[in-house]
This record gives sequence, structure tokens and C-alpha cells, in this order.
Amino acid sequence: MSLYVGVDLGGTNIVSGLVDEEGRILARDKRPTRQDLGLDGSLGQMKESIRTVVGQAGDSVRAIGIGSPGPIDPFEGVVLEPENLPAWRNVPLVRIVEEEFGVPAFLDNDANVAALGEQWQGAGKGVKFFMCVTLGTGIGGGAVLDGKLLQGFNGNAAEIGHITIDYDGPPCPCGNRGCLELYASATGIVRRTKERMERERPETSLWEKFENLTAKDISQAAHEGDEFARRMYEETGFLLGVGLVSAINLYNVEVIALGGGMAHAGEILFEPVRRTVRERALPGVRDKVRIVPSQLGDDAGLLGAARMAMQQAE
Amino acid sequence: MSLYVGVDLGGTNIVSGLVDEEGRILARDKRPTRQDLGLDGSLGQMKESIRTVVGQAGDSVRAIGIGSPGPIDPFEGVVLEPENLPAWRNVPLVRIVEEEFGVPAFLDNDANVAALGEQWQGAGKGVKFFMCVTLGTGIGGGAVLDGKLLQGFNGNAAEIGHITIDYDGPPCPCGNRGCLELYASATGIVRRTKERMERERPETSLWEKFENLTAKDISQAAHEGDEFARRMYEETGFLLGVGLVSAINLYNVEVIALGGGMAHAGEILFEPVRRTVRERALPGVRDKVRIVPSQLGDDAGLLGAARMAMQQAE
Repeated sequence: MSLYVGVDLGGTNIVSGLVDEEGRILARDKRPTRQDLGLDGSLGQMKESIRTVVGQAGDSVRAIGIGSPGPIDPFEGVVLEPENLPAWRNVPLVRIVEEEFGVPAFLDNDANVAALGEQWQGAGKGVKFFMCVTLGTGIGGGAVLDGKLLQGFNGNAAEIGHITIDYDGPPCPCGNRGCLELYASATGIVRRTKERMERERPETSLWEKFENLTAKDISQAAHEGDEFARRMYEETGFLLGVGLVSAINLYNVEVIALGGGMAHAGEILFEPVRRTVRERALPGVRDKVRIVPSQLGDDAGLLGAARMAMQQAE
Repeated sequence: MSLYVGVDLGGTNIVSGLVDEEGRILARDKRPTRQDLGLDGSLGQMKESIRTVVGQAGDSVRAIGIGSPGPIDPFEGVVLEPENLPAWRNVPLVRIVEEEFGVPAFLDNDANVAALGEQWQGAGKGVKFFMCVTLGTGIGGGAVLDGKLLQGFNGNAAEIGHITIDYDGPPCPCGNRGCLELYASATGIVRRTKERMERERPETSLWEKFENLTAKDISQAAHEGDEFARRMYEETGFLLGVGLVSAINLYNVEVIALGGGMAHAGEILFEPVRRTVRERALPGVRDKVRIVPSQLGDDAGLLGAARMAMQQAE
């Protein structure tokens, strides 16, 4: 039996899993990333984590897959300079892991790996043209087209957070203007909500939390009947839907899964997203494409990383 | 030796070619589509055209590929209801051609087929991640990812004409708002130019042609030093660049070829397109992606159709 290790490298924790070909997680290890220890210390945490799950597999481990915050170079196997991993700079991670464990290793960014995981075992199971969008501080994306993860010519595919929904919109740190993630990420909804509050002085329970407002606060208020908060989610869903329409019209995916913290808001977000897609996507598609919640939660990364190892080691 | 027939079905003409595995066109036939004869007469023109080139191949023809204006269903092989082909409604073209000629036939829309042709023998030769954008009355697109034409789950991929560049923009007949083709197609630049003329009353040679203004008139005036006309192309290149940035950030293609009538405008269009891409695409990509003119002109369709037949008959 062939087994694979999937590693989800995050700014706070490293999660490793031993995964079989059916997608069962046979062992799991979670430990802090410990960036305070510097690169060597933090790498040590990863090696220990992998060793722990490999130790339960005997000689059956065929390959190791790793998902990391971007930017990374998947073809060279290098972690470049992710904002969330200040201790990791231009780290040839694939070479390091291959030397340590003696099996092939593969690297891709966390959003791509999560999409592959969801397509394998989650919201996109059995769906050949699938996209997964992660709504967090930013907006990440991964596309699985005809069953294969889209990597693009240099590992920068499916960056849906940086498609333009308003060419004259606010500037984005990426260099573009009017990027989707300025509007529909957790950061985006908080920014837009605070701006709207200052401009319109609405009656809302959110004033109490104004200084440290979070997307979750807004969602909670909306669920408790706060009309202004509900309207902010409605508008965010619309703007997210506009962005998804562009992705749908380019990729012609059948299912888009939404994950990440903001997706927990549920129907107050999904309803306007779906309505916008029904209204705006191309006629041959708008009634067929489905927008669903992602299903694997924290396991998407390690399952997708294992799946990547499985597909690429073949 | 295996040979393939590529057919480019247009509203005005049908062009067929006999193509070998190296992309050489060994025979060619061009005749009017004759929609005035109704579907049967028009189909007869196509059959005659194919027969003419097949006749020069003996028994070596392995498959026939057809590019048609959309919408079509590539999986069922049916021409649905293209605006440019009013005589053709829900025509099971693949079945008809297979019955007539006794070899497998394949169908896709003209933009996809042209992209495949350019990737095989033209501007995208040797490029694994490639997109071709056709600027005409509308804007069509085709994407070749990892060497394979992207068809999507139901044949509606790469519809770059209908990605949003302004979520609050003018309504598009497709149901969306602010679609790229409203701004940057030949129709789009004419509409925007006339609106601007009426609003700003600029000094320009275009007033003489106001009633029947074409994109070519504007390009010609710009090349003759008309500052207003030049500015309209500059702005159109910018808006097209904005749309390409979204496609680049989703597909991570290395080369985008621009074709169709408007691409003949040359540098007055390409320069602002390239500048916008350099300014707005993601940092890891903006200096690497190339925007080039398409190369095959009218042959893109028949070569791409032949290539599709070759790839899918394998």
C-alpha cells in the first residue's frame, strides 16, 4: 500500500498527516510553527512533525506534499517570501525535505493545495471543473480543471483575489486597482463597513466595536438582526459574486466552494453571491454553476498536499 | 501519413483545409456560406467544401475539426443559435459530418479553435500556457493551458469578453454589467468615441465620419496624427489591459496573442495594453508575460480546427 504525507505549513501551526490513496487520514501531528526560533528552529518543527507521522508508516511513504503561504515557486520547490512566514525567506524547502526523508517532495501554495483537497475529498468530489476560494485576510483561490490543479506557467494561477472588479477602484498593494480582495475579504468588509459608518452614521450595534471591528462581529450582528450589518454582507456577497462571475466565464467551472473564516457567515453571504451569479454569469452557465461551502475545514490543506504528492509522484 | 481536415465556418464564408501533422496546409477550399439557401443549402456548401479537400487526400483523412461561431455545444457536437448564423439553429453538425464522411468529427467555437491554431503554428508556438483574444464586433477568447485547449464543464470557457471591469458599468446583452467587450471591442471603441465626441465636442477629423464611424476610421485618424483618436486608442488599450490582467492572474498564461480587426491598429493599441499589464499584473508575473499580435490571420481557424481533430481523434 502506498501512503503519502501532506503538510500544511501555516504562520502559527504546522499540521502533518499520513494519508492513504483513498484519502483516509491515518495519523496526524499538529505543532506550533515557532518562527520565534528562526528558520532552523522552525524547520526543525516541520521535520519533527513529518517524522512523527512517517514513523507510523514503515516504508510505505511514497512522497511528501507541502502547502505553504505564497509566494512560493512550485517548480523550484522554494518558499519565497510569504508575509505570514517572516522567518522563512527563499527556503529551498523541497530539497531540504527530500534530503531529510529520502522520498520525492512537492510544494504549492496553500490556496491551490486546499482546492485540490476539496476536489479530492470535499465540496468538489467528483467535479472535474472546480474552483475553491478562501476568504480570509486576503482572498486566495485554486482551480482544478479537468481534474488537474492549474499551476500556470510560473505558479501564479487562480489568484482571484487580484482580479479587477472596478478598474478605477482603490489601489491594492499588489499594484492593481479595484482588486476583488479589497472589497470581499475579511479585511475588505471591515474597511468598507467602517467607511460606511463614518460616512452615513447608521444606527447599528457595531459602534460598540468600531475600533477593533472584525468580519465576525459584522456577521454576528447581522444574524442578531442588525439591519446595517446585514446590508454590508448583502453588498459583500454581491461584490464577491461579481468576481466569481469573471472566474466562471473564464474557467467554466461547475462548482465553486467558498471557504475561510468569512464563509462561516452562511446564507447572509451565500444568498447574494448565488443571486449575483444567477443574474450575471453567461446564459449557458448561470443556472448550472453551483456555489457551495467548502467542507474539509482545516483538513483541506493536508489532504490536498497529500493528493498533490500522490498525483505528481506517479 | 495521417491527414486532418479543418473547417472554419463563418457567417459569410466557409474555409476548409487539408492539414498534415506538421501543420502544413496541403489543400484549401473557400466558398460562400450561402445562408440565403437555408440550412440544407448552407450545409451543402460545407459538405462540398470538405469533399473538395478530402478528395485530394485519398484515404488518409483521420478526422475532421470544425470551428463555428458560438454558442455551440462541443460535447454534443451541436451548433446552437449563433447570431452570425441565423440559418443554423440547433444543428447536430458533428453527427451530420460523421455520417457524410465516415470519420470522427469535432466541433468547438471559433475563438477556441483560433487559440489552438495560434498555439500550434502561430504566436503561441512552443508556449504551454497561452491565450488568444479576438477583438471584433465582440471579444472572443480561447485558452490553451499546459498545451491543452480549455473547454470547461460545458464548453463556455475563456469568455474574456464577458469578464467585468466595472461592476457598476453599462448593461451588457449577456446579462452582466461592465463587460470588457462593451469597452474594448470594435463596437465598444466606436460607442465610447461617439459618446465622448458628443460630450466633449473635441477637435477631430472623426466628425466627418460620425454617422458610420468604425474602429478602423479611428485607428486611421490616430495614425494620421489626430490627437483625440489617439487618445481613444490609448484609453481602449488601457481598458483592454485591465481585462487581460484579470485573465493573467487567473490563468497564469505566459503569452497572450491579440487578433481580429482591431489588433491591426498596432502599437497605438499594444503599447497601452502592455503598459497596463506591466503596471497591474501580479509582481511575479508582470515582467514575464508577453502580449503579442496573433500571426495566422484567416488560417488560425482552419489550422486550429485541424489540430483539434488531431488531438481528439488520438
